[in-house]
This record gives sequence, C-alpha cells and structure tokens, in this order.
Amino acid sequence: MKEEEQLIMLPGPTNVPPRVMRAMLKPIINHRGPEFKELMERLTEDAKRVFGTKGDIVILSSSGTGGVECSLSNIVSSGDKVMIPVHGVFSQRVKQIIERVGGKAVEVPVDWSRAVTIEQIEDALKKEKGTKAIAVVYNETSTGVKTKCLKEVGELCNERGLLFVVDAISILGGDVLPVDNWHVDICVTGSQKCLMCPPGLALLSVSEKAWSTIEKNKSQAHYFNLLPYREFQKEGQTPYTPAIPLFFALDEAFQTIKEEGLEVIFKRHKLCAEALYSAAENLGLELFADREFRSNTVIAVKNPKGILDKDLRELLRKKYRIVIAGGMGKLKGTMFRIGSMGVVSRFEILSVVSALESALADLGYRSAIGEGVSTAREIFEKSS
Amino acid sequence: MKEEEQLIMLPGPTNVPPRVMRAMLKPIINHRGPEFKELMERLTEDAKRVFGTKGDIVILSSSGTGGVECSLSNIVSSGDKVMIPVHGVFSQRVKQIIERVGGKAVEVPVDWSRAVTIEQIEDALKKEKGTKAIAVVYNETSTGVKTKCLKEVGELCNERGLLFVVDAISILGGDVLPVDNWHVDICVTGSQKCLMCPPGLALLSVSEKAWSTIEKNKSQAHYFNLLPYREFQKEGQTPYTPAIPLFFALDEAFQTIKEEGLEVIFKRHKLCAEALYSAAENLGLELFADREFRSNTVIAVKNPKGILDKDLRELLRKKYRIVIAGGMGKLKGTMFRIGSMGVVSRFEILSVVSALESALADLGYRSAIGEGVSTAREIFEKSS
Repeated sequence: MKEEEQLIMLPGPTNVPPRVMRAMLKPIINHRGPEFKELMERLTEDAKRVFGTKGDIVILSSSGTGGVECSLSNIVSSGDKVMIPVHGVFSQRVKQIIERVGGKAVEVPVDWSRAVTIEQIEDALKKEKGTKAIAVVYNETSTGVKTKCLKEVGELCNERGLLFVVDAISILGGDVLPVDNWHVDICVTGSQKCLMCPPGLALLSVSEKAWSTIEKNKSQAHYFNLLPYREFQKEGQTPYTPAIPLFFALDEAFQTIKEEGLEVIFKRHKLCAEALYSAAENLGLELFADREFRSNTVIAVKNPKGILDKDLRELLRKKYRIVIAGGMGKLKGTMFRIGSMGVVSRFEILSVVSALESALADLGYRSAIGEGVSTAREIFEKSS
Repeated sequence: MKEEEQLIMLPGPTNVPPRVMRAMLKPIINHRGPEFKELMERLTEDAKRVFGTKGDIVILSSSGTGGVECSLSNIVSSGDKVMIPVHGVFSQRVKQIIERVGGKAVEVPVDWSRAVTIEQIEDALKKEKGTKAIAVVYNETSTGVKTKCLKEVGELCNERGLLFVVDAISILGGDVLPVDNWHVDICVTGSQKCLMCPPGLALLSVSEKAWSTIEKNKSQAHYFNLLPYREFQKEGQTPYTPAIPLFFALDEAFQTIKEEGLEVIFKRHKLCAEALYSAAENLGLELFADREFRSNTVIAVKNPKGILDKDLRELLRKKYRIVIAGGMGKLKGTMFRIGSMGVVSRFEILSVVSALESALADLGYRSAIGEGVSTAREIFEKSS
C-alpha cells in the first residue's frame, strides 16, 4: 500500500493531530494496574468537562454505533416506546436499534433537509401516550443537518419524566452541548469526530435518572451492559480489556482541547463551516440542508448538474490528495459531504476549497476559479 | 504519569513488537476508500492462514469478550441449549453470556485445575437432549488450563450436527488450532494475546454451517450482528467505523507471523512455557494446573505459603519492572499468573524467572537464588 499523507475531510474519521497519534506509542500498560487507574480518572474528569456533565462517563472500546446501541439497550425493555425523529441515515439507524433491542420506535418523520421542531415532538407525544424516552440525533452526519431544539426537548423530557438520549457522534466537542443544562440523560459520541482521535472508542454520559432505569432494565446486552462499567469505574477500570493506545490518544486529545478551550473551539468550527458554506454558495453549488438547520461540522453539497460525486471524490483524492465523502442510503449518488471537525482551520478549509474548485473545473463545471477561495478568505479575514 | 518501559508478562495485554506499535502511526485512511479495502483483503487472507480456515473472517472493533458475545448471540435463539464446560472465570463468563442472550446454558462442571474430557461431554450430551451447540474455552486464561479434547469435541459436533464454538482468546496463534480440521464453527480470539497487537480487536472465524444458523437466528444484537459484517466484507469494509490504527497494527503483526512461521511460533511458545514451568517447580513453587492440562501460554502458580501475590506483583512491578497478573474470581489472592504469549523468547523468560526468584527472596521465600534461571537456561540450551 502506498502510504501518502492525505487531508481527511470526512465526516469521520478526521485528521488526527501528530501529538495525538504519537500518544498511541506509549508503552502498553496493565489495564488492571495503577497506571491505567490514573489514566482513567483523568480521562473521566476531562470527558465530564467536554460533555458538561457531573454525571458518569463510560468509555467503550467500540465504534460510535456500539455506543448508540449501548445507550438504548440499557434503557429499553420489551415493548417500551421510544420516540425518534427520522431525517437521515443515522436517525434511521437509531430507529432500527430501538426495534432491535425490543422497543417500539415511535418515528417522527421529518424532511431530510431539516430537523425536527419542538412542535413536532409535542404533537407526536400527544398521539403516543406512554412514551418512555426520546432519542434525537443532534447532528445528522448523512445530511449535514443540525437539530436546533435540543434544549427544548430536554426541558420537555425533564418536565414529563421522559429519558432523553442524544446521538451527538459527529458534533460533541465541536458545537454547543451542555449535557446537564439541557437535561440529556445519555449522550453518545465517538472518538474519531470532533475529539480528533483515531476511531475505536465511544463515549457516553449517563445521568442519575438514566441509572435508575438501567438498574431495573432487563437487557440482553453483555459487552454493552452499562452496570459493570459503573462498577469497574470505581476502581479506575473497564470491565473488559480496553483499547489502550486509543485511551492514550484520547488523553492527549483532551489536553489539546483544554489548552484551546471549548468556547474557542466552537467558534473555530462555526467559522470554518461558514467559510465552506459561503464558498460553496459563491461557486453556485446547492447545499443540502435548509439554511436554518446547517451543521457546523458536516457540510453536505448537492451534486452539480452533470457531475457525479463519485468522479469528483476520486479526482480530489487522486489528484489533490483530499478525501471527502459521498451520500449515504437513499442520498447515495446525489451529494458530497465535507467533514469540518476537530483539526480544522484556515489551512484545511482553504485547501479543500481550492482543490474543490479546481477539481470541479477539471470536470467541466463552469465557475470562475478563485471565487470560492476568495469568499472563504473573506470570512476568515472578517473574523480576525 | 511516569512513562517507563515495562516487561508485560500478563495473560493479555502482552508486549507488542516495536514495528507493530509503529504501524499504528500510519496516516488515518477512509474506511470506505480503496486503501482500506486493500488492507481488509490482506488482513482477511492472513487471518484465514492463522486460523487454518477457508471460512469467513470477521474483525470486530471490541475486546475479546465482545467477540465471545458476538459468537453466541448470533447463533442462540431463545431457549436454545448450549453446552459449556465450566472450569474457570472465562468459561463462567461464556455461561453467563449464553444465558444473557436468551439461551439455556448446560453447564458441565469441571475441576478448575483440569479441563473437560470427551467422556464428560458425551455423558452430558446423553442427559441433555436437543443441545444445539457446544462452547468450549480452549485455554482458561484464569487458570492456565488447556482443553485437550478440542479435536474430539469438534468431530462429535460434526457427526451430530451441533455447532462448535471455541473461545481461543488467549491461545490462537500460540498453540495448535486448525479451525477447519477440528470442525470449529465459530472461533474467537483477541488482538492483544498471541497475535502481539494492542488490545481493541476481536477476530472470529465463521463456518458455512454457522452462517446457515445465523441467517435464521433472531438476534437482538446490532453492533455484533454478524450478517452486516459478511455483507460489507464483500466490499472490503466493515459495517461500522473500524479502529483503523489497530487494523494497521494487526496487519504488521500478521507479517511478522508469516515471516516466523506458525509451526516455529508454536514450538517457541511450548519451549518458553516449559522453561517457566520447570523453573517454577525447581524453585519449589506449586503450579495450579494439573500437569496434563498445562497451558503453553498462561502459567498459573499458587501463592507460596506466607506470601501474597499482591505483594509479589507489586514488588515485581516497582522494583523489577515486570508486570504479571494475580488470580481472578474465586481464585483472587491465591495465585499469580504469567502470560507467555506473542513476544516471548529466552530474553523474556530468563528476565521474568530471575526477577521472580529475586523478588521471592526479597519476601523471605527460601530458595537458592539462581535455581530457576539455571533450570530455564537448561531447557533452552537442550532445545538449541
């Protein structure tokens, strides 16, 4: 395999800072020994800060999807109603998991270019008595759509005693999500998105309210059963052997996050997204998400007429060494997606915009070369 | 945290060769792109060679326990009888998982210092009509006991149409296990044992016979549902984002295995275990496993009278920079365990034996210093 440094502008995995990569090379330690305990305690504290929670933190050696399954299988008993607004591939997946673990998924169908509104949730709740929990995908990785009413849904869940589960995989650490303030009972994210780590870990926050349901729940889950994680956490351990190098990487990533500061990071993500959106619009490209629901971390762009994202992506990868994603599920072949998470700044954004306009020109797209870069530059200059 | 190179003589994680560690630093790639496909295809071929199978290989981003749950949840439907000889903590865990995923565990109780015999299996089968599968822990990591009748159980399963599941986590790649020849339908291992990788991956082989059950099975598993893995494998992908750096590490580890050759590796493990067992006996230490069931990869030694393994282990770690394990479950506080897997040779064995006799002397154990090393040395010299 030819080993070539590429700019990974995917909606996960994302570019990993060299110091985070190097952290994986720390000598392997005993996961039942004092060094791991020290590491776990620091990781937990740092994660709490990033999640904005005083609740518990669980770190799973699995992908984010494993984390989502974990969040649901631990609170859903057979026949339990869980509401899920569906507006993309990952909310479809949440729905599927609810059903798989024995629950009854109450789907709130939403136009895929938009996210659910609090009114839609309230209406759906009126129709579905006895709903136990509401699960929301905060940032639909498949569409670049951000849910705007998360705080309101949290308040509603809090008032009515419902559990609130948030899939924040492609957004936590890149955009505002104060877990406790917004009454999120279980929040899930993955290591390979805004947290700038390699893939392989899922992180969950768990509230006291969630624990009291989990304790009573009969789950078939073993590896994803949360109770042993809480038990072993007391000793600074995980119940099963953890993916140690990824824990080291996460530790280093949390230090970089602490150094930069969450508020600064959120602003940086917002600015980079704005630069990408403006550049795309000035290049005459059509964005997938409705303006008010645009994500700050995943930018979805419709294929320009006569150009296949497949060709565009291959050209970007081979000729320009920049990797972006295509559409998923029913959106396959209709769009391309740019991940703007974690390690993103002027450098990455100007690189991807210049390569994009250049590759589009290669494919015969009529736009004045330089328009995109000039627009993106303006956004950055205005902010500094 | 003080970062100090230690000799990790645990029954997992184990020492990882520097070249395998370094492989984790390869630039992150798109798990939906051509580089990952190439990697997956090579990994699958190499894994098939190590497992000795023409069946399918599935690589999960999870610990070995996740792999064991996966192997069972995919074939066990509600009420299905699965036989499990229980002779240690990990076979207890398999039993627990069988029950967790809805099966009826048919326990064959075995003395913990021994493994099940084919006669015990046959007797148990006579009593339990309608058994669907037999699960066996090949190497009990908690006791250093190796099951000797695996081939015979496989033949029996093959004749009677039962599924044969083998937990080979702390042994595959370190001792003989020709999966197809021994009629193993699902064989599970972890990356951090004999395969010399960091922890975080589970590998499974799946036979055609297993697939035909899996296809009909109603499983609650989502992340561990095997069907999507088979589907995505066709494209050289995994259904969910894989722990990419660990896949790179596994790739490099497979190359070192190919270079040395499986037969040579098995002999090396056998020799190292022999040196450890002989040294321990000559130091007057009592081994936990009955002679005929001694493992070549995990060496369990009873605490000498008046010495706590806790003190011994702490001394070894702090003063001699060698990490070994204690007892588990009901054996906690009664023994210490030495992992002799993956990166093991004269160097590691002589280091651990000399440190062990030295630490034992520190704790007031009466033995002639040098006895252990001299015995181990003899074993190595005889063989060369």
